[in-house]
Amino acid sequence: MARTFNTSAPDFETRFSRFLGEQRADGHDVGGIVAKILDEVEARGGEAVARYTAQFDELQIDPTTLQSDNVDLAALAADCPADLKAAIDFAHDRIAAYHSAQRPSDHSFTDEAGVELGWRWTSLESVGVYVPGGRASYPSSVLMNTVPAKIAGVDRIVMVAPAPKGEMGPAVAYAALRAGVDEFYPIGGAQAVGALAFGAGRLAPVDKIVGPGNAFVAEAKRQVFGRVGIDTIAGPSEILVIADETANPDWIAADLLSQAEHDPSSQSILITVNEAVGRAVDNAVDKQLKTLATGERAARSWSTHGAIIFVADLDQAATIANRIAAEHVELAVADPDGMLPKIRHAGAVFLGHHTPEALGDYVTGSNHVLPTSRAARFSSGLGLYDFLKRMSVQRASPAGFAALAPAALRLAEAERLPAHARSISIRSNAVQDPGTGDDG
Amino acid sequence: MARTFNTSAPDFETRFSRFLGEQRADGHDVGGIVAKILDEVEARGGEAVARYTAQFDELQIDPTTLQSDNVDLAALAADCPADLKAAIDFAHDRIAAYHSAQRPSDHSFTDEAGVELGWRWTSLESVGVYVPGGRASYPSSVLMNTVPAKIAGVDRIVMVAPAPKGEMGPAVAYAALRAGVDEFYPIGGAQAVGALAFGAGRLAPVDKIVGPGNAFVAEAKRQVFGRVGIDTIAGPSEILVIADETANPDWIAADLLSQAEHDPSSQSILITVNEAVGRAVDNAVDKQLKTLATGERAARSWSTHGAIIFVADLDQAATIANRIAAEHVELAVADPDGMLPKIRHAGAVFLGHHTPEALGDYVTGSNHVLPTSRAARFSSGLGLYDFLKRMSVQRASPAGFAALAPAALRLAEAERLPAHARSISIRSNAVQDPGTGDDG
Repeated sequence: MARTFNTSAPDFETRFSRFLGEQRADGHDVGGIVAKILDEVEARGGEAVARYTAQFDELQIDPTTLQSDNVDLAALAADCPADLKAAIDFAHDRIAAYHSAQRPSDHSFTDEAGVELGWRWTSLESVGVYVPGGRASYPSSVLMNTVPAKIAGVDRIVMVAPAPKGEMGPAVAYAALRAGVDEFYPIGGAQAVGALAFGAGRLAPVDKIVGPGNAFVAEAKRQVFGRVGIDTIAGPSEILVIADETANPDWIAADLLSQAEHDPSSQSILITVNEAVGRAVDNAVDKQLKTLATGERAARSWSTHGAIIFVADLDQAATIANRIAAEHVELAVADPDGMLPKIRHAGAVFLGHHTPEALGDYVTGSNHVLPTSRAARFSSGLGLYDFLKRMSVQRASPAGFAALAPAALRLAEAERLPAHARSISIRSNAVQDPGTGDDG
Repeated sequence: MARTFNTSAPDFETRFSRFLGEQRADGHDVGGIVAKILDEVEARGGEAVARYTAQFDELQIDPTTLQSDNVDLAALAADCPADLKAAIDFAHDRIAAYHSAQRPSDHSFTDEAGVELGWRWTSLESVGVYVPGGRASYPSSVLMNTVPAKIAGVDRIVMVAPAPKGEMGPAVAYAALRAGVDEFYPIGGAQAVGALAFGAGRLAPVDKIVGPGNAFVAEAKRQVFGRVGIDTIAGPSEILVIADETANPDWIAADLLSQAEHDPSSQSILITVNEAVGRAVDNAVDKQLKTLATGERAARSWSTHGAIIFVADLDQAATIANRIAAEHVELAVADPDGMLPKIRHAGAVFLGHHTPEALGDYVTGSNHVLPTSRAARFSSGLGLYDFLKRMSVQRASPAGFAALAPAALRLAEAERLPAHARSISIRSNAVQDPGTGDDG
């Protein structure tokens, strides 16, 4: 049973504000431990990475190559069943198609003053993709983090994934090879993030690190940020469904549980204008939990973090959804197109009754790496943009320079930066009629 | 006198690699101090902010309003000279025009499978702009951080700037009002970053914090990252000039000094194919330093971090420039258009002889907030994009759903996520002809 809220209740605002402020991620303070590991990796390179990998993953790796005789990507991939390979290929091609459509254009224009302005997009040279081990080692995540980098034109894609005691999934290995990973190292944790950021052994440093991980990995990414780029810090997964009377309660219940099953700290929220639908979903969740192999995790998530919010109308539903700013938002309503423009903060929006979030997790082609923990207020899901950057480009003609120089000089003077001023005035003197000395 | 390098020297690679690895930012470990300030601000709100402001800035502010009777933005702005106001207006309008051209389009397409895919851009609701006090309190920076947020459609722009003993520049105040800042608080340091991230007194939390600051501000932004968005971590400024025989050595020297004067940790680099130009620039720098009010700072920057690199040809110049990935790159060559496609990593590129970097700092309209310390390898300058985010949107028709379902089911099964699988299969059963039960 999840908590229920009703926007018409007098204590709604108080209870809902408290609900919004609840922390779901574990609050371990791992900063000190991570800082020590990163320092060691920076100072001792492959030797430190090998030592931590032996300690945490019980895996012996060569301190120079960072490889283990017990982990062979190609051999692992060969063990992946043919029908699973086909599903990975299908997902791969759709992800490639979606992200190819994201390529932004360079731009250039010349304004009235005679100044040419614009920007050019270029790709990163090297990217590190972190793939978690254990329960969260997903072939779909390998594709989602790697394919956009490849489409963007990144020259060198380095994947790291912990392989405790040499164990690694064949599907993850196949997905890595299918996506075109250039280098693979069976390492994980903060030591792998350090190896990617600083280099270690024959692993040369990368320019940016993407991919989810546990609290140690997230903290390590935060600490190396600035020296290399990182994607957003991933938190527990979330789904928010907005349902009207046209929604099928059994379907919605299944969708809510598809996020709840990830982790007890995941969050599933239903917002509905229809009281009967809300009650039916709540009952359907309870019923479906009984036959779910991941039911224990899902039940804990649903009872601790789940919620059913009853609202007066769909406008109110949108307002509440925007305050929550969930990772995934399903619009299970009769007119999703009418509702979409009202959704301002969400990682991804799923329209109508036949677009369960799980479809987008795997095969629609859009990216499943999305902002969590209300980060959709200020950030986007992973995309081609994460592997490109924009250089501004500008050129002043002599006439354009003359038109802009006086204001630039005045500002340089006001900011007490005389060398800035001189870099303008030294050209003004040459651009002007030598007889006038006029700055205008 | 700056260091010189020559790509034809046998020890070039060794020396150049060491040069690239040099740290210029001060390595103060301020993490612990900042964490304590942020904890206090989160726990005690305005009371803590007022206490730190009294301690660090010798300014009394009200713990509820976070305002001081001694700092009145409108009164300060009234003291800004008319010609300086006009220069700020001129810069403002050009920055607004440039960033208006950056607005990305929403996109939607339907693929062969009958799946509608795309994305929508929406703006952030609230942004905090940090403006430094002291030497680096620049009206141009107020415009560069605020105008793109305004153009993007951010509803609430909150500016903070320390006002030690109540002192603040009239030009900064005028620029803030001209750019349309919605709220202003005379606070700075880590406590201001905490107030923006957590809220304090009547200051409601913002969604993203942008703007440069000292080591404490940068560390505070790093620590609140994830809870709110931040821009990149700003380091000391840099200029790199690529010059051939058509370059004017006096102009280039002025440009190199325009960055060197910012701070002793700034960096100015000349790459030239022409030995005579290199020597002439070196001499011109020495000469210009003698008459520069900021000469002491600039001379320290030039002698400690400056460099003249002699290369065989412009291809080699581009290769070296890309390894440095400087914030600003001037192409002071006969054919800048031929050279531009070779530049892959730079914050901003300035073409030809009449586009000194200072013009872009103030009035071309492009943004002067740019990646430093080699971050141009993986990040872009500030732009409209920083105040927008992209929601992915997807819709499967019943037929589109049926086409995608089998691969999604197979992947959910492989990833051992049965609720994901059920959210697909529960719909498959309804979509299929009830007689067949076929999943395909």
